[in-house]
Amino acid sequence: MFVDKINIQEKFLKFSDYWSPKVIAEMSDYQFKLVKIKGKFTWHDHKDTDEVFIVIEGCMRIEFRDNQVELREGEMFVVPKGVEHKPVADDECKIMLIEPRGVANTGDAGGQLTADDNIWI
Amino acid sequence: MFVDKINIQEKFLKFSDYWSPKVIAEMSDYQFKLVKIKGKFTWHDHKDTDEVFIVIEGCMRIEFRDNQVELREGEMFVVPKGVEHKPVADDECKIMLIEPRGVANTGDAGGQLTADDNIWI
Repeated sequence: MFVDKINIQEKFLKFSDYWSPKVIAEMSDYQFKLVKIKGKFTWHDHKDTDEVFIVIEGCMRIEFRDNQVELREGEMFVVPKGVEHKPVADDECKIMLIEPRGVANTGDAGGQLTADDNIWI
Repeated sequence: MFVDKINIQEKFLKFSDYWSPKVIAEMSDYQFKLVKIKGKFTWHDHKDTDEVFIVIEGCMRIEFRDNQVELREGEMFVVPKGVEHKPVADDECKIMLIEPRGVANTGDAGGQLTADDNIWI
């Protein structure tokens, strides 16, 4: 078998743009994506799937309509499907997302921040 | 919304047994599990699903019948479904597994190392 391991920090060296998730691995029909974030993202939800955030470096928060959660390195959070959320990072933060293949970063909200959902690095 | 974030290292403080994965989160029908490993596991495969290994602390290797891969902190590997593998760690290693709910740690191999597949911490 061909073995191709993934070094997460090395993958982060391959891009510098914000809010544009890059796919690093697939597991069945789910994808692992890395993304650098800074500033405020748009309010959105994902109607059909939960979405997992894992902070690899830095800190961020996820705002909800009635609450928010602060996440630091080594912390994770599952945003349930259908729940509106808005990721925010005051400084650059590196995160891993896990979600099904084909999920747009802006969900149903669309807009200028919508990224190609299948760029591999 | 009730927000309950997960701190991965704090979860590792809650158990000390080896080769017995603990569930920390669910995303749709997938589970995130933490496991401490040391020594050699049994040869096994998972007929119906890929399985993701992410090394949180320490190092390990995954042996295949014709190859092997060494994984250190911050590295991940996707074992394709149906591929026989044998996880090994010379010293204690802390890893995260991602796989569908209901997957047994020993796959179809069974045996004494088979753990309850749905213990939450």
